[in-house]
Amino acid sequence: MEKFQPVKGTRDFLPEEKILRQKIVEVLTRTFEEFGFSPMETPAIETWEVATAKSNLDETTDVYKEIYRFKDQGDRDLVLRYELTFPLARVMANNPHLPKPFKRYQIGKVWRDGPVKTGRYREFWQCDVDTVGSPSLLADAEILALCSKVFERLGLEVVIKVNSIKFLNALLSYAGILEENRRKILISLDKLEKIGSEGVVKDAMEKGVDEEEIRKVLELVKEIDPEKPEAYNPEIKEAIEEIKELLRYAINMGAKNLYFTPSLTRGLTYYTGPIFEVFLKSGKLSSSLAGGGRWDNMISNFLGSKDKVPATGVSFGLDTIYDAMVLEGKFEKRKTVVDVFVIPINTLEESMLILRELRDAGIKADMDLMERSISKNLSYANSLGIPYCIIVGRKELEQNAVKLRDMKTGEEKLINLEDIKKEIREIL
Amino acid sequence: MEKFQPVKGTRDFLPEEKILRQKIVEVLTRTFEEFGFSPMETPAIETWEVATAKSNLDETTDVYKEIYRFKDQGDRDLVLRYELTFPLARVMANNPHLPKPFKRYQIGKVWRDGPVKTGRYREFWQCDVDTVGSPSLLADAEILALCSKVFERLGLEVVIKVNSIKFLNALLSYAGILEENRRKILISLDKLEKIGSEGVVKDAMEKGVDEEEIRKVLELVKEIDPEKPEAYNPEIKEAIEEIKELLRYAINMGAKNLYFTPSLTRGLTYYTGPIFEVFLKSGKLSSSLAGGGRWDNMISNFLGSKDKVPATGVSFGLDTIYDAMVLEGKFEKRKTVVDVFVIPINTLEESMLILRELRDAGIKADMDLMERSISKNLSYANSLGIPYCIIVGRKELEQNAVKLRDMKTGEEKLINLEDIKKEIREIL
Repeated sequence: MEKFQPVKGTRDFLPEEKILRQKIVEVLTRTFEEFGFSPMETPAIETWEVATAKSNLDETTDVYKEIYRFKDQGDRDLVLRYELTFPLARVMANNPHLPKPFKRYQIGKVWRDGPVKTGRYREFWQCDVDTVGSPSLLADAEILALCSKVFERLGLEVVIKVNSIKFLNALLSYAGILEENRRKILISLDKLEKIGSEGVVKDAMEKGVDEEEIRKVLELVKEIDPEKPEAYNPEIKEAIEEIKELLRYAINMGAKNLYFTPSLTRGLTYYTGPIFEVFLKSGKLSSSLAGGGRWDNMISNFLGSKDKVPATGVSFGLDTIYDAMVLEGKFEKRKTVVDVFVIPINTLEESMLILRELRDAGIKADMDLMERSISKNLSYANSLGIPYCIIVGRKELEQNAVKLRDMKTGEEKLINLEDIKKEIREIL
Repeated sequence: MEKFQPVKGTRDFLPEEKILRQKIVEVLTRTFEEFGFSPMETPAIETWEVATAKSNLDETTDVYKEIYRFKDQGDRDLVLRYELTFPLARVMANNPHLPKPFKRYQIGKVWRDGPVKTGRYREFWQCDVDTVGSPSLLADAEILALCSKVFERLGLEVVIKVNSIKFLNALLSYAGILEENRRKILISLDKLEKIGSEGVVKDAMEKGVDEEEIRKVLELVKEIDPEKPEAYNPEIKEAIEEIKELLRYAINMGAKNLYFTPSLTRGLTYYTGPIFEVFLKSGKLSSSLAGGGRWDNMISNFLGSKDKVPATGVSFGLDTIYDAMVLEGKFEKRKTVVDVFVIPINTLEESMLILRELRDAGIKADMDLMERSISKNLSYANSLGIPYCIIVGRKELEQNAVKLRDMKTGEEKLINLEDIKKEIREIL
C-alpha cells in the first residue's frame, strides 16, 4: 500500500542492504581514524540564516532551491542540512580556539528536496573528511592518500583525477578568456570525458560562450604536457609544478592511481586550490565515488574575517560506493548477521546455555524463539541464509554432543559440546 | 556569537565527546549482532499520516504536540520521526513477507520539539532493538539478557527492574479499581521509588483518584511476595508464575541483576506483556538507561488486521548512558583519536614514509602539516592529548633511528626504524 511506503525520495534499508552499507562505513571510519581524523557530529537541523549565508551557498544553485525549510514552535526559521560543509564552517566559527589543524570526519544524513531519479535521493548519506587550518600541500596530499587507501580497502579499482583551480585559472588567463565567461567554460569543460570535445563546444555555446574561446581552451587542455611546464607562461608553469609536488607528496604517503586531468573542474565555486574526483576504473559507473579539494575562503567569509582559515577535504558518496560494490561483485548479500542458528529438540534449557556460550565467544548466534519443528526451523534459517545450524537433540546430548549442519551442503556432523566454539570459529 | 551556536535543543559533538559516544555505539552494535539482531535503517522523514496513526500515537500525549511538521515542494504533509518504533510498524506493514521472527536494531536520531532542560533535547539518538513475530517469553528473555550484557560490557553496574502488564492488570482487578482510573494509578505508581508512598498518594489524588483506591494498590504492591503466588487469586498467581519463568529464561541466557518490581509500570499505553527498565545501581542518575517491553498490538492495529503481530524490544538512551559513563568515571576524554604524532626536522620525505608505515599497520597516526618548529609541534600534540610523538631528526636517521617521546612523562628514547611499529603497538 502507498501509505506504507517510505516518503518519496527516501528509502528503507532492510538488513540485506544495511549490513553492507554498514560495512562500507566501517572501512571508511577505520581508515579516516588511521589517517588521524576524529569523529564529529552536528545537528540535522540548522537555521535558514546559517544554511543560506552567502559564503556558504550560491542562491542561483539547485541546492538552494532544494532546501527543506520549516519552523519550530518557537517560530525559528529552520532547515534540514543539505551538506556537511557549512555546518563545519559554523562549528569552526563557534569554536575559534580549537587547535589547528583541526582534522575531523563526519558521517551523516543530508536532505535535498530535488528531482528523484536513479542514484538521486532526497535523503542520503555524506561521509566528509576535512583538515581545517593547514595551507600546506601536505594536507591535500594526505587527503589523496586517504582516498586511495579507502578504495584499496574496499577492493575497488579506481582512478583519482587531480587538477587545481590555480592551473585552470592560469590556463583561462593564458587563453585570454574574460572573467565573466570562465565559470560557464569550466562547467562545460568538466563534461569532456563524458560528452567529448564537440559535446563540450556545443554545451558551452548554448551557455553563450564564443565558439572560438571554448575551442582554444579545449586545444590547450589537450596539448598541455606536465613534463614541459615551461612551454607556456610562468603562471601555468608554477601551477603545474605545484600539482607535481602534490602528487609526489601523495605518493609518498601511499596514494596510487593519481592522474593529472586538466579538464577536471568540479564545477563548484568554492574550491580554491587542488581538486580531485574518484571514478571506477572499469567505467561501469559514470558518477564519481568521491570528490574534494581545497576550500580556503568559505570559513573566513562566513566569519566575515580577513584572516584566511584554509581547509581541504573530501566527500565520499555512500550510495555510489554501494552501487559500485554491487556492480563489481564485491558483496555477498545476506539477510541477517547471524552465523549460527540453534535448534532445540525438547532441550530448551541446554540449548539456551549453548546459545549463551556462543554469544559470549563473540559468535553471532540465534535460537528458535517460536517453538517450531526442526524442519520449520531449518527452512527459517535457510530463508535468511544463515550458514550453520546446531541441532540440540536429547540423544546427542547424552553423548555430550550436538549436530552441526552446514546449510549450503546439507552435511551434518556430530561435534563435542566442548568443541562447539572452536569448530564454529574455524569454519566462519 | 548566537548565530554560530547550534539550534536550540540540538548539539554539536566535538571529537572529545563524539569519540566516546561512538565507543558506546560500537559496544551496542557488537552486542546486538551477537544476539542475532541485524541492522536496519528508515528515513528521518515520515508522513504525518503514518506518524500520527491512532495505533502509533496517542493524541493526548506530549510527544504528539512535539512533532516537527513541514511540507515538501510536492505539498506532502511530513514530519521528522519522534521515535523508531512506528517506522518499524510501517516497515513490517510494507514488507509482510519478511521471515518471522524479524530481529532488527536501529540506531538513529529522532526529533521532538519539546521543552529543553537537563538531559532533554530536541534532537537525540535512540538505539532500538526489537523482535517482531514471536509471542514467546523466550523473545522477552533474550532482550533482557541482551540488556544485561550491554551494561556489563560498558562496565556499568545496573539494576534491571522487571514487571508485566498482565500482573499490573491482575493486581488492579484484585484491588477492584475501575477501568477509567487504572491509567492514572499506573502513572502515579511508577514514581514510587522516586517520591515514596505519600508522594504517590498525593500524585494520584491530584489526578482525581480516590485516596482509598491508591492506598489499597500501594499496600498490595508492598506485600506481594513472589514466593507465595497462591496467596491472592488465580490471575495474580498466573502473572507471577509467568514473570518467574521469564526471569529463569533470561538468567539461562546470561542476564544478571534482574529484580521483579511490582511498582514498575512504564506509563506507556502500548505495552501488553513483560516490561522492564534499567537504572544505575549507584543511584547517581535518576533517569533510566534503557527500557522496553512487549508491544503485541501496535503493528496489527496499524495494519488494521485481526492477526496479532507480536513484538518485544528495548530502547537504549545514548545520552543517559553517556552521562552515566562520565559520572561513573568510565571514560578518559580525548580530543583526538591520534595515538602517535610524527614531527619531521628537515626530514619531510622520510617522515612521510614513517607515517605511512604506521598507518598501514593500523596505528592512528598524524604528522605536522604546518611546517612548524619542534616546540610548536610538541605543544600542539600536547593540547590534543596525543600520547606519543616520534621526532625524526637527520642525526638519528643516520643511525637508522628516531626519537620516541612519551608525552605524559616527557621521557624520550631512541628506537630503531625497524622497531617503530612493534614499540608503538606494545605501549598503546
